[in-house]
Amino acid sequence: MKSVKKLGILLIIGVVVSFLFTETPCTFAENRTPRNVIFMIMDGTNSDVVTLSRWYKGQPLALDEILVGGVKTYSSQSSITDSAAAGTAMATGHKTMADFIGMVSHERKSSRPVLSVLEKALMQGLLTGIVSTSPVQHATPAAFSSHVKNRDEFSDIAEQQVYQGMDVILGGGKAWLRPKDEERVKNDDGMLKTKELSREDGENLLKVIEDEGYRFVNTKEELTNGREAPGKLWGSFAEEDIEFEFDRKVLKPEEPSLADMTKAAIGELSEKENGFFLFVEGSKVDWAAHKNDPIGMISEVLSFDEAVKEAVDFAKKDGHTMVVAVTDHGNSGLTIGSQNTNKKYYDLPVKKIIDPLKKAEFTVKGATSQLKKDRSNLKEVLKSYGLADISHKDYCTLRDEKDKVDLENKMVQMMAERAHLGFTTHGHTGEDVFLYAYGPGKPTGLMENTELAKVVERYLEIPSEQKKYVDGKKLYKARGYHVAINKRNPHNPVLIAKRQGEKLEFPENKNYMLRNGEKIKLSGVNVFNGDTFWIIEN
Amino acid sequence: MKSVKKLGILLIIGVVVSFLFTETPCTFAENRTPRNVIFMIMDGTNSDVVTLSRWYKGQPLALDEILVGGVKTYSSQSSITDSAAAGTAMATGHKTMADFIGMVSHERKSSRPVLSVLEKALMQGLLTGIVSTSPVQHATPAAFSSHVKNRDEFSDIAEQQVYQGMDVILGGGKAWLRPKDEERVKNDDGMLKTKELSREDGENLLKVIEDEGYRFVNTKEELTNGREAPGKLWGSFAEEDIEFEFDRKVLKPEEPSLADMTKAAIGELSEKENGFFLFVEGSKVDWAAHKNDPIGMISEVLSFDEAVKEAVDFAKKDGHTMVVAVTDHGNSGLTIGSQNTNKKYYDLPVKKIIDPLKKAEFTVKGATSQLKKDRSNLKEVLKSYGLADISHKDYCTLRDEKDKVDLENKMVQMMAERAHLGFTTHGHTGEDVFLYAYGPGKPTGLMENTELAKVVERYLEIPSEQKKYVDGKKLYKARGYHVAINKRNPHNPVLIAKRQGEKLEFPENKNYMLRNGEKIKLSGVNVFNGDTFWIIEN
Repeated sequence: MKSVKKLGILLIIGVVVSFLFTETPCTFAENRTPRNVIFMIMDGTNSDVVTLSRWYKGQPLALDEILVGGVKTYSSQSSITDSAAAGTAMATGHKTMADFIGMVSHERKSSRPVLSVLEKALMQGLLTGIVSTSPVQHATPAAFSSHVKNRDEFSDIAEQQVYQGMDVILGGGKAWLRPKDEERVKNDDGMLKTKELSREDGENLLKVIEDEGYRFVNTKEELTNGREAPGKLWGSFAEEDIEFEFDRKVLKPEEPSLADMTKAAIGELSEKENGFFLFVEGSKVDWAAHKNDPIGMISEVLSFDEAVKEAVDFAKKDGHTMVVAVTDHGNSGLTIGSQNTNKKYYDLPVKKIIDPLKKAEFTVKGATSQLKKDRSNLKEVLKSYGLADISHKDYCTLRDEKDKVDLENKMVQMMAERAHLGFTTHGHTGEDVFLYAYGPGKPTGLMENTELAKVVERYLEIPSEQKKYVDGKKLYKARGYHVAINKRNPHNPVLIAKRQGEKLEFPENKNYMLRNGEKIKLSGVNVFNGDTFWIIEN
Repeated sequence: MKSVKKLGILLIIGVVVSFLFTETPCTFAENRTPRNVIFMIMDGTNSDVVTLSRWYKGQPLALDEILVGGVKTYSSQSSITDSAAAGTAMATGHKTMADFIGMVSHERKSSRPVLSVLEKALMQGLLTGIVSTSPVQHATPAAFSSHVKNRDEFSDIAEQQVYQGMDVILGGGKAWLRPKDEERVKNDDGMLKTKELSREDGENLLKVIEDEGYRFVNTKEELTNGREAPGKLWGSFAEEDIEFEFDRKVLKPEEPSLADMTKAAIGELSEKENGFFLFVEGSKVDWAAHKNDPIGMISEVLSFDEAVKEAVDFAKKDGHTMVVAVTDHGNSGLTIGSQNTNKKYYDLPVKKIIDPLKKAEFTVKGATSQLKKDRSNLKEVLKSYGLADISHKDYCTLRDEKDKVDLENKMVQMMAERAHLGFTTHGHTGEDVFLYAYGPGKPTGLMENTELAKVVERYLEIPSEQKKYVDGKKLYKARGYHVAINKRNPHNPVLIAKRQGEKLEFPENKNYMLRNGEKIKLSGVNVFNGDTFWIIEN
């Protein structure tokens, strides 16, 4: 019996050891620990800007800890993508053409909506949210939460977002939530990428948000204080975009930072045990890059990095959260090094690059926002952009620059020269970009941007067989309905299907249909692509 | 008894299972499987060039499969490194200043040699080799195999390499192996980075190579055929550098490609069971980047990638080989996208980028190498660079360009414009670069370039306590010798230490000392830094 005992003990040891070295299988679908994904995009950021921002900070970035590979960014039509096609690729797993938001298209005439990982997560009962420093209607957050065939359509995007039933929405873009009134967009310098400067359709989305039970907040203070109970949260902190971080701290301290918003969103979404999908965008690295403003680019990379820190800190504690951080494409071709540094490997210490940049308090847009109409304070404005010590000749050049955009151009050129930085373009670029990720199931290596959506879906265990958008016109015709699209109100078209005393109405951008006037909730928002309605039945 | 048997069987299963899920410990130092490292550098390659090369090839690269992270490239003195400081960082694990080869220095006056991973591997009894398309005396291969305080000193570098006792050396640079004669460097356009256009010291290193028992080969044919038995191999295939790959195929088919050399080197080094360290450089992406020639850059990235395929294929079969592939720094700031593509995300399919590039048969240097003195064949030369269809005005501009470098400049500008490419500089750039690696022990994530040396050392199990370079003057003075440096032959200085009828001589760059005329082998080559001799005793 002794030998039996010994064998028994050894057996137990053997089994325990084998258990220790075996990964826990992932097949316990019921009662499983909730899984979360935080998907973060720093829009339009090439690798040089990240390096430069680290030098500027003088310390490692949160991103530095989680570099895992690279991403190919091209769109279905172009070696250089726009943010709409890139956002759609990462949100839906489908390459598409420029301007298309959550819509697949290989020729401009035809398009159909495809569900984003956020929408699929929503259907699975996970909590969801979007956070951005741009208007939340801007291309990238839009690609995760709406379907339009032109990124320009902010009003449609806003309406779909309101009817999606997400749990947390934080960012800019209040102008597209309220019906057209006196308060409309006025600060746009081309970066909003929309011609819709306010809602034209008479909808009051602020009212809908209220009716849906969201806590609505307007300021950083409201965001961080006064929360009574967990629940749906909508924060709209600016008519258009939230200020560049360097400028925000001084000029708009009432607005939250991206890190503030990310922290608040994680707080809300992690309250319940459903698991969540959160999308976060540091939107305006791209905007600064279009302007070739290194100060703005650094401001927004560091702001994004703070948000990444919030996400990774949470993921470390939580243990079931995957964080993905990536840019959607390069922009500006910024390099540390320029035509003036061709052979200067001996006398270009970091100090020579960073010191001129450190002299700027504001981004170029922040600086010129303080310029008086008569330009009497030009010197102070230049000083706030780190150009205190310019020559009289340079000063005169700047003073005589009539157009504000041209003035900004000259200012950023002066800064770039001082900091030994080069640029190749005011547009996007086509290179592979760095991929950052943390946590279980994380992607690694070189990937197509579309693969990221699939990695997220796998981790969130979203079944491959899912509800899909179908052509509503075709569907109801096939069922014997008489089908028409009512465009009497051009801003609010409706798909109408009639059969033997039954009238079905599918209003654009809403998540419901009416059967003989009675509201029936659908699994997704109704999408009108100009030709037909795409709908998701229950 | 039955239950004992059952328990026994269960126990065995338990143990087997636990064994399956436990990694084999690495403590069996004796009789262990030999470990190999292939360390590959594509010099001066930013991420955009890799993306562009993939588009050009139309298929995935070997590199694509093994992307694992990124590398910080700055030197001890500058945010933008040169190849000497970067090569030294990766070879020795020490940041240093521009121009220093295998030498640590934080101020230009003082410097001391530090052992490279290659030298440490050599001391551990591993086989070693270097391969490059540049002269093997060029900065990066030099940093792994020699110690000089100025990368310019090709003669000293060559001599040290010959006396290192490496097993395989393949590349260009024959001009620095033979004593000064009529055949000297003549094709340099500034990329060699040396003023030493031949040996001045009267040494005939070809004779030493022969005496040391190397099989010496001059051509691709000799490299790949006629090998009788494994042994030491020295291949010197060009007076200066090996031709750009696109040009080589047509203009110099007798030279081997980088992949040919890599394959041959792996063949030799893997023959014995010692384990090996092989350094491989695709040297001339950098050279083409300095010229802003996209054709040359693509030529050399694809050539490097073929070599990576050889290395990874071997590593996959072998199972005990770590492959690291990385660039030492960015160069040129090339972007897919330029000032003319600012908002062209709709009409820039890959074809529009690649088609103009595909028209070139040669790199710009290959093309102009065929130009007759009277320029009567300029049209053919332009055609061979893909510029057949230029306007008469452009043709006249090029025809009237007196200086060949200026002609090349205009040609590459025309090509860049056609292919929608931008450049920020003719010099290096300071961004983090992609890290590629494969195999056991491989590095991942974001690293300092210096950490790569440490990763390699760890994998090769090189003990942390190693022989070190010591100041020979100080050492022998302390031991009571009278010490002097004999510079009678300025090209061959000797450290001389005398005491009571004993005379020690340490000739520069040799791996031996003389005791009263008798040769005694040392563990490393003697390094003279202009002030003192650094030596490694046995």
